[in-house]
Parts: sequence; C-alpha cells; structure tokens
Amino acid sequence: MRQEKLLIPTLREAPSEAEAISHQLLLRAGFIRQVAAGIYTYLPLGLRVLRKVSAIVREEMELAGVQEILMPAMQPAELWHESGRYEVYGQELIRFQDRHQREFVLGPTHEEVITALVRNEVNSYRKLPLTLYQIQTKFRDERRPRFGLLRGREFLMKDAYSFDSSWEGLDSSYRSMYDAYCRIFARCGLNYRPVEADAGAIGGEGGTHEFMALADIGEDTVVSCMSCDYAANLEKAEGHSGEADPSLLLQVEGNAEAGSAVNKQGQAAAGAGHYDRLHTPDTRTIQELAQSTGMAASSFVKTLIYLCDENYIAVLVRGDHEVNEIKVKHALDAENLVLADAAAIEAITGAPTGFAGPIGLSIPILVDRSVAAMKTVIVGANEQDYHLRNVQPGRDFSLRIMGDYRNATEGDCCPRCGGGLVFHRGIEVGQVFKLGTKYSEKLDAKFLDSTGREQLMIMGCYGIGISRILSAVVEQHHDSGGILWPNAIAPFYVHLIMVSVKDTEQVRLAEELYRQLKVAGVEVLLDDRDERPGVKFKDSDLIGIPIRITVGRQAAEGLVEYRERRTAEQIVISADTVVAKVTG
Amino acid sequence: MRQEKLLIPTLREAPSEAEAISHQLLLRAGFIRQVAAGIYTYLPLGLRVLRKVSAIVREEMELAGVQEILMPAMQPAELWHESGRYEVYGQELIRFQDRHQREFVLGPTHEEVITALVRNEVNSYRKLPLTLYQIQTKFRDERRPRFGLLRGREFLMKDAYSFDSSWEGLDSSYRSMYDAYCRIFARCGLNYRPVEADAGAIGGEGGTHEFMALADIGEDTVVSCMSCDYAANLEKAEGHSGEADPSLLLQVEGNAEAGSAVNKQGQAAAGAGHYDRLHTPDTRTIQELAQSTGMAASSFVKTLIYLCDENYIAVLVRGDHEVNEIKVKHALDAENLVLADAAAIEAITGAPTGFAGPIGLSIPILVDRSVAAMKTVIVGANEQDYHLRNVQPGRDFSLRIMGDYRNATEGDCCPRCGGGLVFHRGIEVGQVFKLGTKYSEKLDAKFLDSTGREQLMIMGCYGIGISRILSAVVEQHHDSGGILWPNAIAPFYVHLIMVSVKDTEQVRLAEELYRQLKVAGVEVLLDDRDERPGVKFKDSDLIGIPIRITVGRQAAEGLVEYRERRTAEQIVISADTVVAKVTG
Repeated sequence: MRQEKLLIPTLREAPSEAEAISHQLLLRAGFIRQVAAGIYTYLPLGLRVLRKVSAIVREEMELAGVQEILMPAMQPAELWHESGRYEVYGQELIRFQDRHQREFVLGPTHEEVITALVRNEVNSYRKLPLTLYQIQTKFRDERRPRFGLLRGREFLMKDAYSFDSSWEGLDSSYRSMYDAYCRIFARCGLNYRPVEADAGAIGGEGGTHEFMALADIGEDTVVSCMSCDYAANLEKAEGHSGEADPSLLLQVEGNAEAGSAVNKQGQAAAGAGHYDRLHTPDTRTIQELAQSTGMAASSFVKTLIYLCDENYIAVLVRGDHEVNEIKVKHALDAENLVLADAAAIEAITGAPTGFAGPIGLSIPILVDRSVAAMKTVIVGANEQDYHLRNVQPGRDFSLRIMGDYRNATEGDCCPRCGGGLVFHRGIEVGQVFKLGTKYSEKLDAKFLDSTGREQLMIMGCYGIGISRILSAVVEQHHDSGGILWPNAIAPFYVHLIMVSVKDTEQVRLAEELYRQLKVAGVEVLLDDRDERPGVKFKDSDLIGIPIRITVGRQAAEGLVEYRERRTAEQIVISADTVVAKVTG
Repeated sequence: MRQEKLLIPTLREAPSEAEAISHQLLLRAGFIRQVAAGIYTYLPLGLRVLRKVSAIVREEMELAGVQEILMPAMQPAELWHESGRYEVYGQELIRFQDRHQREFVLGPTHEEVITALVRNEVNSYRKLPLTLYQIQTKFRDERRPRFGLLRGREFLMKDAYSFDSSWEGLDSSYRSMYDAYCRIFARCGLNYRPVEADAGAIGGEGGTHEFMALADIGEDTVVSCMSCDYAANLEKAEGHSGEADPSLLLQVEGNAEAGSAVNKQGQAAAGAGHYDRLHTPDTRTIQELAQSTGMAASSFVKTLIYLCDENYIAVLVRGDHEVNEIKVKHALDAENLVLADAAAIEAITGAPTGFAGPIGLSIPILVDRSVAAMKTVIVGANEQDYHLRNVQPGRDFSLRIMGDYRNATEGDCCPRCGGGLVFHRGIEVGQVFKLGTKYSEKLDAKFLDSTGREQLMIMGCYGIGISRILSAVVEQHHDSGGILWPNAIAPFYVHLIMVSVKDTEQVRLAEELYRQLKVAGVEVLLDDRDERPGVKFKDSDLIGIPIRITVGRQAAEGLVEYRERRTAEQIVISADTVVAKVTG
C-alpha cells in the first residue's frame, strides 16, 4: 500500500493520558484512536494486526477441529436469569431495555447463549464432543478502563466452548485447547507462561490455566519456579517458607490438638505468663511495629478479622505475608469474604483496629502454616496499645484450623520441587477453564448417552483477548524508537522508503521494487510521501515494520539499504538482489 | 470438512414464525438460529457465507482504494448531540448509560464517529480524498423485526465514508463506490437494480442510489422502465400518465393562471352552475364511490388535507393514484407532513372526513399534474354526503400550485424515454449517498485548502447490508428442495456424499476424493454421517452446495455421480476424472 494516502497519523509526543508504553506507542504510531474511555477505533495499521492475530487464531482453531460460529452481542436477559448470573454479575454487565421494555444485556461472554444453542440443537452422545468458537466483540463496563487495549470496555475476543459426554472427554478437549493456545501465543511472538489459576466457585473437578504474557505493566502476578515448570498466578500459587518442612509441620499439628483442647475448655490464656505484654502505643501496622521495636516484620503475626458469609473469623499470617482471600474462601467453602469493619473488630477483640490477636478470641481462627511453624511470635493483645511477645503457636492459641492461607512470596519454595519461586508481572491474554456442569445444569443442557439415559453435558470455556494481544506484544517488543513487530503479526513485512519523491531515479527504482515485492506476495508499505528523510525514518521506526528497504542517493547505482528493525543491522545491497533477500 | 461432527442442524419443517422463504430455508438448512426477535446466531455454514460475502466486499473496497478501519459499537451520546441526531433518531436508536451515568448509544451507523475521527486526524487538502470503510456489527431496535436476516436488530454492515475537498471530488468518490457496489452485487450472484432514491433533507446538491435485489418479499417498490435503464424507488420515481403530454400541460397551466385569478377574487365558486351536486350518502372512499356510481376510480379526484409543518394544505390526486408525501415535502421544503385529523378536516372543509374537495377551500391546494390534465372530474363537495360532478380543473379550482405529487403507477410513462414503467418488489441491499457538508458542518470537520483557507469537508456515505445479502440471495436462488448458492458465496463448492459409511470400498474412495479435492484447493464438505441415503440427499439439496459428488454402489467400479445442484443434471463419471472436472 501507498503511505501517501493511508491514514497513519503518527504523533511526536505521547498523549498525556497514556501510561502504558504499549498504549503510548499504539497511539503515537497511528494504530488506534480513543473514542471514549476504554473504547477505541482501529486505524488501518491497527486493524491489519488485529486481523493477523485473528487469522492465526482461526488457523489453530481449525487444526484443533473447532468450529467457528458467530453469536450476537445483544442477549436476552432471560438467559442470564436462567443461569443466575444476571443478579451476580455486577456493574460490568451492560444492561438496557429495548423499545418494548424487554431486558437485554451486551454480552461480556457467551456461556448462556451457547449453552441454550447446544441444548436445542444437540441431543445425542453421537454428536459429542463438540467445540465451537467465535471471534466477536465483547462489552464490559470496567470500573477503570486503562492502558489502552489492555483493559477496555469494548474489545475483540475469541471465545470457545466445549461440550463433552464425559469428564475424560472434557480433559481431552481442554488439553487440545491448551495446546492450541500455546501455539497461538508462540506464533504471535509472545513471551508467555501458562499458569495454574483458581477455578473459583466451580469446585474441585474443574481446572483452569491462565496464559500470561510477561510484562511489567501486567496487572497480575505470575509465580514461577526457577527449577521446574511450575507456574501459577498469585491467587493460586502455593509457597512454602524454608521453615515449614513437613516434619516440623507434623510436630506443630500435634501441638495444635493440644491447643485446641485448651481452647475448648474456654481457657484461652492457658499459657498465660509464658508471654509478655509489650506496650506499643499508636503502632497499628506491622511496619510501625517493626520500626518501633527494631524487629523484622517476620517476627510478628497479623490477625485479620473477616466477615465470611454470615460469620466472623480470624486469619493469622506472618507479618511479612499477605492473606490470600481466595484460599481462605476455598478452605471454608464460602461465597463472600470481606474485612470486618472497625465496629465489628472492636466488638470481637475488645480493642480498636490494629491490636487484634488470637489469644482469647471466641471466633474460628485460621492459622497459616508459616505461622504454625514459628517458635515464638508477637501478636496483638486484643487491648489498645498492647501486643504480646513470646507467644507460642499451639501452646498459646489453637492450630486446629491450619493451612495455606497466604500469598506466596518471592523466595518461597516451589510446592513441586522445592526450588525457589520468582515473581513476574503478567498480562492475562488467555484462559482455559473446565466449567463442568455449571451451565448445563442451570440451562438444562442434556444429551442421551449410549444407553438412552439423559446426562448433563460437561463443558469447558476458553478465551483469548485478541485486541489485548496487540498491547501485550508491544509491551514486550519495542525499543526507544518505537514498536518491533514480530513477523507473523506485523502490519506489513517490508517498509519501502522512497527518500525523495522528487528524484526520478529513486522514484523509478522504488516503484519497480514495490511492484516486484507485491508480485512476490510480500506485504509492503511504500512511503511515497513528500516528507523529509528524517520524518520518514522516525515514522518507520515508530511503526515497527520488520524490514526496511531504503531507496536513496545510491539508487542511480542500483543500490539500496536493507535494514532489520529489530537488530538495526543495515547493509547496502544491490537492488537486483533485495527482493530475493526478503523472500529467501 | 467432515459433516459428522459439523453443527448443521437441518429441519424437516420450517418453524412457524418464518414467513419469508429465505428465512425458512436458512433456518431449515442449519445456517442460522434465532436468539431473540431480529437477533441471530450464525452457525458454521451461515458464517462461511457471511465471510465469503465480506471477502468479496473487502476485495472490491481495496480495488477502489478504500481503507479498512474498525470503529466501536459503543458511541458516546455527546457525538450524537453534536450532530443533532440524538434527539431526532427515534426509538430505533439503542441508548444506555454506563456505570458512571454517562450516555451511550449502540451505533446504527457511524457518521458521527468517523467525522470526529477525520476532523482530528486530517487537516490538509493533501490528505484528501480519503475513503474509509469498516465491516462491523450494527444495532437498530426495529419496531417489527422480521423475515430473518432481512430486517434484524443486530446485523453486519459494510459502511464507508468519503471525505473530499470539492464537490467534483465527491462525485468521483461516489461514482467509484457506485461502480464497486455493482461489482459486489454481481459477484454475489444477485439480480439487482441501482435505483434513484430520495436524498431526504440533504437537499439539492446531494444524490443517492439504492441497490435493490429484486424479490417478491422485498419491502420496497422498484419502478423501472421497460425501454431504457431508468429505475427509481417509489418515493422518488416520476411517472407521467398518458394524458399528461407537455402541450396539454401547458394549456392547463394557462387555465391555471385564470383559475388562480378567480380564486384571488375570493370567488371560489366562480364556475358554479357548470357542475352538478351528486348525492353520495355514506360513500367516503374512492372505492365506495366507484362502486356506487359505476364509474372508474380514475374519474374521481381525491382531496387530502395535511398538516405541513404549521400550516394546513390540500393535495389533489386522481382517484386511482396515491399521494407521494416525500414529493409534497420537497415541493414545500417542509420538515414534517402528516394527515390532518378529523376535527381539523371538519373545521377546514365544513364536512366530515370523506367529502373534502378543492372548491371553496381557503388553504393552499397542490394539484397533481395528472389531475390538471383531466377534462372534468368528480370531487368532494365539502358538504356531508355530497360530491360535485363535471368540475373542470383550472376553471373551478386553481392550478397555481401544480406538480408531481403522486406515486408513479405501473403503466405510467418513463420520465426519460416515455417507455412503460413496471414495478418490482426489491430488497435494499446497499445505498450510496452524497452527504455533502451535513456532518462536517455540525461536527466542524474542516481542512486547509491549497490557499490556506479553511473549508468544510464534503462527505459521502455508502452502506451494504452484508447479512441481509444472505437472505436476498436465498430469496432469488432456491427451488422446492432448498437453496441454490451461487458459486462465489457458497459455504462449500463440493458436497461429497459417502452413501454408506459401512461399505469399505465407498469409504476408501470417498476419503481419497476428499483428500484430492482438498489438495486441489477445493472447499469440500464430506458427508460421512451414518444416515440413510435419502436423508443425505435431502439435506444436500436443502444446504445447496453447487456440486454434488456421490460415492455409492458403483464405487467398486471406480464410478461416481456428478451433479449440479442448480440444473439437477447428473452424470456418472470415472472417479479418476471427477477432480479435474470440478477444478477444470
């Protein structure tokens, strides 16, 4: 294509609202423009990349035997009432009424529509397994859209749904999509990790992986092992502190029973006297305590009071650890978990926020195993301005409910091999999910098995953020000059620069190479603009097409410059051989 | 692809809600399924056709030098306030608020978004002309969605917008799109007519054509000449009755002046006595009058009272003609035109509805030229239960305001060549429109011309109903057995039928041909289902793939059946030559 007339409005400066480098570069290089917060127009270059990513997804879906369909964005609310999600989805779900006051939603995802479709159209095990996908525009009214295409309100997704007649079938469908996803992200040039993720309310039989493109801007934390291929997101990752070796834990568990018995006798402070009161005026946070006492944060134990569904509970983690609420919810099989408010904390502990501790508490106490593995700890005294020192877990408070309730931390041991865990930031570009019978049960999607009995279909769902991939790729592939598109998804493969449109020899040679490249099937962008060379080269670096061929002063001698954007290696070669070099 | 696992849920019976044959067949052949009224899911076969039509559109757009972009469906209401359309668009526009109570609409069209884009990104004549298009999902909350994809609420459209620096440039952009549209519809196999249409409020400098696929189910009337290539939609078409030859009209116009003079003297009934009162009790319609008097409807003149913006007017047309309100609005440069209510009619004429006539009326009277060309007419007497006979236009009522105010009728003379006009029903599959400066003015889209002066961009817009084309094609291409897809947009080119999946010879040969066809680049659907032959053939006819190759009993002898769906011609040929016949 010819750049003179192509709409590529490059910008010298990044618009002030763009924080992420990918957002800045996609705006500056003229790939996208914002229409409203989280809502974008794809300009010609942006759309070309979007379509290349889509094409890769389609190829891999077809290879995996997955069928493409297209479902509507407008979905009747009835379906969402059937699944029960209408009430629980929250404000991200865009709802509106049609002219006849019928309720609709704009699909953020299509489990309901597809389950209703398959329920109506498939009724025999002979038609299973069946996996369907679409590449379609999704709507989510994000509270805080940001980072350009990374967190938008209208975005392009590939969503697939599998229907199986058995759990083994689901495992196989899931694995097939997992493998296809690996190929897709690799082909898009992404440095990604598939990580174990939390399956949420789906429960034990379900499994889920997220595909994380590693990038500092990422909103998720990827926990991975330096020695084996274990990787999980922070919600899911298990971490073991050095102290918490199994034998020690067993020992502690013995103590736990004793502690539990003590507690049951209502003598919460059975070990009283073994520990000391510590005057800690106005020190409510671990940070303040560590500062005022000169002790490490890991010497302390944090006691957090939560409202868990309808009951209050306490969760104990080491001072340098963070509670993982997902793990706590799973342990208690709870739906909702929120920190207790100040009034409740005061009522439960008898002290204002900041001085809670396990001793004497009459609510269930969940003790993280890192706490259980500590010899002595400092905890809140349940009394304003006081903490307790030399408290012994198991002796002074019960370890009856003990488990993994914290986020892993860097340096923890891998749960698989004991190697060291490291953290990275990641952008979630895809997720595969074993849904099981969650939707088939709600929407009554059944089939007749080979014995003629009705069974619920067993489902999986699989998503890829097509538009998000653009941003993730740019986050990973750029330099100070602009974008470095991977070949497979670059908007063009060759950027052919005609340095001076007034030099007839340059024009002639550039036009001839343009023609030859097109004939050879190479996607080429010809910069035929009447601009200064500096502008042309700056724009070219910004746009990031993999190969640049410059037709300049040496055109008369039949020489051109060949340059790879990524390496910046530049050679002068004969115009006669340059097309072969590009295609060879 | 293999049919065994492909989701093609064919139906023996058409669902009762489907009136149009295309709707019935697309449902029965498993191309689409309804999610809600006017909202559909495209199943694998339907999506394949949709993507083929899209590919043709993209090819022709690229050939026309048009650039593809992708705009969002969610549009901020501010833009629609700027253009003034937010208030006037009516209930078809879907409106909703985001979580922060900001108003949005779901785009039924994108003039606002694109004008705002180009206003921001293009500011010099050197970047013009510029034509941009997208293939994107549109939303219109139709009052009465029907006929499947013909009138839906969510549908796929190609919409393009041109920006020029001069009116001549617009003419050229418009012509280029017009030509591309002709190629697109022809390639899709449509029997279509480009027709002159009404440009509505855009005014004189604008022009517009609709592209009509001829089909009985069509909601529009196409008026075309049997002798020349004149064609227009009913709103726009000019028709001349045989009587209304120019000389006669001139003569009448002379009379008109006289009549006008008479009227000006306030002697509305100057010719009184020349005409007779006719007692017509309870005959309020032309039909009733014709029946009770035994005279042809064309002997009568209908007098319709309208409220036109803020004034009442009367419009006279022959009894067998219909008022064309668009033409009346243009003649009076009016925004709104509605029939007067009964009370207003009684106040103006002194008689209840059904007895209005021109004589004695004190409001402006628009006389259709067919009326002016009549020697004597029968009109309402402005008195209950009476009409007047032997009334002479020009003598008994003024012809001062005379023109073309009626719909053309079949048999009228072509305004170009005088040939006979015929009527067809048409489905609007595309429209090209000279917008002029309507949006650039409202949204302040200006450029600097070569002298450095600011000028408004001159715009055109161009739409194609991609999903609607599917229905239009099926309306035109079907027989009693099912669909007859044109080659260019067929979901597959060859339907390869393995008659018995239990016959190893058939299976072997069919698999071999399947492989060969795929290697040859032919899109082939292999019916490898374990179904009776009758079911396979019925489904095949229903789906409508152009060529069918049947591998049956003669497989052992190396023979197969080759059959064209459209002609039903069937031959037995050697399996060795069938691939060459398909590709040759």
